[in-house]
Amino acid sequence: MVRELELIEALREMLAPSASAPGVLRWLGDDAAVVRGRGYAVTSVDTMVDGVHFRRGQLSPDEIGHRALAGALSDLAAMGARPGEAYLALAVPADMELEEAAELGRGAQTLASACGVAIAGGDVSAGEALTVSVTVVGWASDPGELVGRDGARPGDLVLVTGALGASGAGLALIEGRASAASVPSAIATDLRASYGRPRPRLAAGAVLSNLGATAMIDVSDGLATDARHLAVQSGVAIELTLAALPVAPGVGDVAAQLGVDPGRFAATAGEDYELCACIPAAARSLLETEWDASRPTKDLPAISWIGRVVEGPAELSFRDASGALSGYEHSR
Amino acid sequence: MVRELELIEALREMLAPSASAPGVLRWLGDDAAVVRGRGYAVTSVDTMVDGVHFRRGQLSPDEIGHRALAGALSDLAAMGARPGEAYLALAVPADMELEEAAELGRGAQTLASACGVAIAGGDVSAGEALTVSVTVVGWASDPGELVGRDGARPGDLVLVTGALGASGAGLALIEGRASAASVPSAIATDLRASYGRPRPRLAAGAVLSNLGATAMIDVSDGLATDARHLAVQSGVAIELTLAALPVAPGVGDVAAQLGVDPGRFAATAGEDYELCACIPAAARSLLETEWDASRPTKDLPAISWIGRVVEGPAELSFRDASGALSGYEHSR
Repeated sequence: MVRELELIEALREMLAPSASAPGVLRWLGDDAAVVRGRGYAVTSVDTMVDGVHFRRGQLSPDEIGHRALAGALSDLAAMGARPGEAYLALAVPADMELEEAAELGRGAQTLASACGVAIAGGDVSAGEALTVSVTVVGWASDPGELVGRDGARPGDLVLVTGALGASGAGLALIEGRASAASVPSAIATDLRASYGRPRPRLAAGAVLSNLGATAMIDVSDGLATDARHLAVQSGVAIELTLAALPVAPGVGDVAAQLGVDPGRFAATAGEDYELCACIPAAARSLLETEWDASRPTKDLPAISWIGRVVEGPAELSFRDASGALSGYEHSR
Repeated sequence: MVRELELIEALREMLAPSASAPGVLRWLGDDAAVVRGRGYAVTSVDTMVDGVHFRRGQLSPDEIGHRALAGALSDLAAMGARPGEAYLALAVPADMELEEAAELGRGAQTLASACGVAIAGGDVSAGEALTVSVTVVGWASDPGELVGRDGARPGDLVLVTGALGASGAGLALIEGRASAASVPSAIATDLRASYGRPRPRLAAGAVLSNLGATAMIDVSDGLATDARHLAVQSGVAIELTLAALPVAPGVGDVAAQLGVDPGRFAATAGEDYELCACIPAAARSLLETEWDASRPTKDLPAISWIGRVVEGPAELSFRDASGALSGYEHSR
């Protein structure tokens, strides 16, 4: 009990920048946080459990905090919502030191500050396994600004942001399933960071929403799984081209060590937190122009056109792959 | 993986009434839920972990779902906020059957319907211990409608709703630390239900806010702990009278079996989820009149005047108790 209160006190100091965020009227220390509403609330909850979604020995505490918040914010990015507040619920096992738990809070706060998010509240309790449950709330003035999973239409083109496979390759290095010896060391560092500190694509999601995305999802379970969600929710067929997938630097080396085709690895390794979006074909050229114009100021990733939406049963297929692919085939 | 998807599907059916709630535009099945904002958002997260906050063997799955949601909604009641939406994050251990987890969702949905709350989203993952993390969002048109913990002033009177000790006594019966033999069976049933299905005091919180409460908290950790939070956050001394506490029927018998004074038991046993509020002395008579007038239509509990706010160091004291009291002295 005293430990919990100590931790709450340490987190209060750590998360103090959030208390002065605009629109936050009450935060930690009351029965509930109070924030100014702005139109429509977009809310997602993401839970990460030690031993299931990560292992404490493989990540630093601040990476665990960063990653849990990033996973939740990625859902807001996939809706094209402006991020607002986050609420951090921790279940802390008896063997976790106060400093370790506080460090986790620091990792979340650093990412929150970078994304303009206020961590306005949360909850601390004892637990068997470290469990980090993050609720994030974003806002939209009009529901029409938001992009669901259900709006893809035949004729749309499919794109993905950034590059795929880096997080899965990073995890393979961390777990020693692949050796970093054949990968340039700067690239190996990047791969590990892709796993430990993924960047939610908030700016990219907002721009894609503005430029007419009809359906969008974040690539958390692997593109093969997540793009299928778009097909099923939209009731359309989606055809992707494995060879068109943007494979992150170094992923080829790691995939080779694991005996897997790099494209297949990129399509099935999860936790890249890139965005997969469907765009009307007619909007492609304007999107490319605007994207290139916005990239320097908004720190946008590259985009790759990887397939199309067609009439047909609500399924995902890869035109150049034999057999079905599913998420997490190789990453764990 | 398949199990999680099955459970999500079962929960989707279970929670279907929430999908048609007014103001819910998107819910389960998208990256995030979308709901219409209404002024100021009041948000609280409450996590309950098997083995820490409850034991699966002692409660039915629907009681676990009810209790987790009730604990979170109780925080909204303590702010005087109108409840809006809830988000349910479950970490489910391998030995939990689909039907058991679905039953948990049903317990939460039944309470949500009774309180006019929409369960608009959530998250399901694997976990070692069953963990239920509930985020609730309430709304207020104006922040002045909300009651924090920090507004108590010398001269205020202190009241508590309902009766205390019932949940702690129910747990003592469930755990066999006390025998139900000396308690009338209807009362023993009520005591157990107080533990298994606490009722969040949402209507009472709204009325107390309207009638001028200056500070308010829900009694989750025991009155001795929670009233101290009001004193510390408001920077005032609070004096309560142990003999004035409303002790729930049957608590005297159970406390006697445990060798504890009933008032002391009522002040320290937690999880009653009643409200403790501070009210300007001048507002007492109007409050009593209005309360009595509203009771039949709003199903309000009784209220008891249990102490006062005075100048002095920010502390809680009981005028008729020797030594300090703290929450959970006897309940576990």
